[in-house]
Order: sequence, then structure tokens, then C-alpha cells
Amino acid sequence: MQILTENPNRDYPLGYFAELFKCAKSSVSEDIKLIRSAMDTAGYGYVETTSGSKGGVRYVPYISDERALQVLTKIKTMLEEPDRQIGGDILYTSDIMFSPELSRGAAEIFAKHFASTEADFVITVEAKGISVAGFTAEMLHLPLVVIRRETLVSDGPTLSINFFSGSNDRFQKMSLSKRAVKPGTRAIIIDDYMHGGGSIKGIEDMLYEFGARSAGVGVVIAAGKEWLEESSDRYPLIYMNESPDGIRFEINPRI
Amino acid sequence: MQILTENPNRDYPLGYFAELFKCAKSSVSEDIKLIRSAMDTAGYGYVETTSGSKGGVRYVPYISDERALQVLTKIKTMLEEPDRQIGGDILYTSDIMFSPELSRGAAEIFAKHFASTEADFVITVEAKGISVAGFTAEMLHLPLVVIRRETLVSDGPTLSINFFSGSNDRFQKMSLSKRAVKPGTRAIIIDDYMHGGGSIKGIEDMLYEFGARSAGVGVVIAAGKEWLEESSDRYPLIYMNESPDGIRFEINPRI
Repeated sequence: MQILTENPNRDYPLGYFAELFKCAKSSVSEDIKLIRSAMDTAGYGYVETTSGSKGGVRYVPYISDERALQVLTKIKTMLEEPDRQIGGDILYTSDIMFSPELSRGAAEIFAKHFASTEADFVITVEAKGISVAGFTAEMLHLPLVVIRRETLVSDGPTLSINFFSGSNDRFQKMSLSKRAVKPGTRAIIIDDYMHGGGSIKGIEDMLYEFGARSAGVGVVIAAGKEWLEESSDRYPLIYMNESPDGIRFEINPRI
Repeated sequence: MQILTENPNRDYPLGYFAELFKCAKSSVSEDIKLIRSAMDTAGYGYVETTSGSKGGVRYVPYISDERALQVLTKIKTMLEEPDRQIGGDILYTSDIMFSPELSRGAAEIFAKHFASTEADFVITVEAKGISVAGFTAEMLHLPLVVIRRETLVSDGPTLSINFFSGSNDRFQKMSLSKRAVKPGTRAIIIDDYMHGGGSIKGIEDMLYEFGARSAGVGVVIAAGKEWLEESSDRYPLIYMNESPDGIRFEINPRI
């Protein structure tokens, strides 16, 4: 079960486990049945099996609505802490975004939502989205590509674009190694925070320059509800809205 | 088992599982025994239990020497691919460092090595070490702190230091939010690449400025063997050495 859950969306033949545990395939098969029913009860995902002589098994991560709400409520409560506001609508979120527990929880929600997109990789821009994007990539069994804000020597030849960052209120640069993305591929874009959509637009432009395209966009916090209505493949977890009483957070009611 | 392995080093009372699966604590206890023996066979970690009325259970990740060598051999083989060299001793490693499978593997080796340090958090500097550091933090059930190369508005007041980067052959800046680290704490430093040790020294200086200190240093690739001999709490996974025949990689024989 651990091998399956640490390697989501990857097929394992029953023979693999039979050899590992030195037992008959039929016993493995019985155990898989037990695991499957335990999983159904716990709400952490499910186990898919294919029968026949080449019979195999894979774990598909799945977060129950109840657990998704638990995770998002915890993030929302932390966002509402009064000393998080640095000034205006700027919030300190590094501890939330790099918390293994919370970033994994957010990633499970993204992985469930984007499970059927058949994307080729997950892409983000450094730095606060890397943890969520990394867990999402792991759960979908896809590679992770990280766009940089500053070019590093070790990237080799890079492609750079400029984009307008709403959260920093100025133009910024993003760069990606020429060898990081192949033409004709599709990416799930994951980011921690969206304010105006400049950096998401930047990532989409970057994909276009590589001959690749977006298969969907997931952000943890979206400032402004209008963003949602633009397109159905955009999936924010928590909305942040300014009101006369201050900043308000709302969990995306679609989750 | 999934709940345990996705929440390493965290205690769960047996009653938690009894309630979740609606069964007696004694059945949970029997199942835990089964899980423990399966774990021992598979070499993925072990399950610790405490008995008595407050009896609980926790999963401690543990990578067997055999699996550690498998992961490191895979990374070494990829590093040896001829088109990875960008010029001189600069290598393209983003795909390796952000591969969920390989970065998790490297993290398992670090988590095992640093399990007894009783550190308070894991720290890295953006960007290529974030995935390995994130998995290490998750497995040790610690928060992750990420030092930035560029100050972000959302960090609020930051503390910055300059360090000499051997891999980029120039002085660079790193910044960390004033609220990210508490005085008196201890950190495990994780980085993807060490060349001359400037950035590790920078992280150590940064910790010092916060009144915190290092509990150990893990790097995936260390250029130059002399680094190892400096101190026993420094733990590189793969050495990179220049020789007249080109660059050579060697798995740390201590692993």
C-alpha cells in the first residue's frame, strides 16, 4: 500500500508484489481487495486493478470533499490571522505555502481536479508555488518544470519574457531553460497567488513560445472573483476580496 | 497505512483508526502488526508503537541501503549524460532536482540521516533545492523555510546577506523574512549543489543573524571531496570531481 500511495498513477503488475513479499499472486490479489475497501472507507484515494495474466494495480489519489474542506478551512483560518497583512493587500504566506501538510493538501485538490487532463507536465514560477506544484506533479506522476525569475548559469540557453506583475505593481522577467519544455506538449499551471493574472498570463506566453500550451490553471489564492469567470479551466482554491471591512477570504464554492 | 506514511513522524492514537474504520482498537492493533511486518519486508520504513491505554502509532520513514543506492545510481547515470554539460563544470540539473521520484528518493536518504538531530525546521535557498528540501521536511514532519535570492514584497521586513557563489563566480544576495525563523532554533540545511560552499556558508551566516544554528547540512551534489572532510555533520550524496578525462561522479561511499 505504501509503494502504491508513494507512486501514484503508476501501474504495478501483481507479480512485482508477489516477488517482493515472496507469496502467490492470488494472495496479493486478496490483499489488494482489502486495501481497496480500506481506502474507500478512509477517503484518501482508490485502487484501480486490471485483471488477466498481465493484471496490474495502481493508486489514484483522491481527496474527499470533507478532507478538502478541512485543508482549505485551515488555510483560510491562517490567512485571516491579523498579523499576516504586510500592508495593503499584501500577505505573508511563505509559511503556509511551504508547509508540507498544507501544500500537500492543496496539491491533492489540484490533482483530483486535473486528473483527467492528460497533461505532460506541471509548471510553476519560483518560488512560493514550488511546494504545491511539486506535490501535484508527484500525485499525477508528471515531471515538474520551474520557471525562474533570475537566469542561472546552469540553465544554459534560456528563453525570457517580461510580464506585468499585479502583486508587485511592475514589470518582471521570467526565464526558462530552452531544454525544459518540448513542443506540442501540454502543462498544468500551478501557482500560489494570483492578483490580476499577470504571472499566469506570463506562464501561458512562455508555453506558447515553446510551442506548448496550458491544460488548466490552479492557484491557491486568487485575488478577485472575476478571474474565475474568465474560463472554466481555471481553478482557484480560495478567493481573496477587498471590502470596506478589510480583506475577506472565501473558499471556492465549487470545491 | 496510507495515513501513516503520508504523515511521517506524527503520532496517531489507535482510537483514531478504530473510529475511522468503525472497529475495535484490538483489531487496529492486529492490523498494525501486519503492516509492520509488511514494512520490514519492503524496506520502506518502519512503524513504531507505544502500548497502554494511550497507545499510539507512528510511521518512521527509512530507506534501505539497497533502495538508496538505486536512487543515487539513477541520478548519477543521468548526471553522466554527455549533453548535460553547459560549459566547464556547469551542469543542467533542473529536471533531476524537480523530478518528484528522484527528489523524494534523495529526501528519504537525508531524512534517514538527519532523523535523530531533533531540528526545528528545514531550510534551503531557492530554487533547485526546494523539492528535495520539501520532501525532507515532510518526512521529518518539520516546517520548510525558503531563503530568497530576490526580495519579494510579500516577505515584509527581511534580513539580507551577501555571499560568494562559487558556481556563479560572483557575490550574490540572499534574503529571508524577519518572521521566518525564531531565535534559539536549529535547522537542517538542504541544497541541491555545493561548489566551494559559499551558499551553504551564506545560509549558516543567515541562521546566525537570526540567533538560530545549523543541525547538519545535506547536499545532493558536492563538487570537490575536500568539503566532506571539514565536518561530520555535512552529508553529500554524490561527489563531482574534475579529472583530466572530464567530470567524474561518485556516490558517497558512506551511504
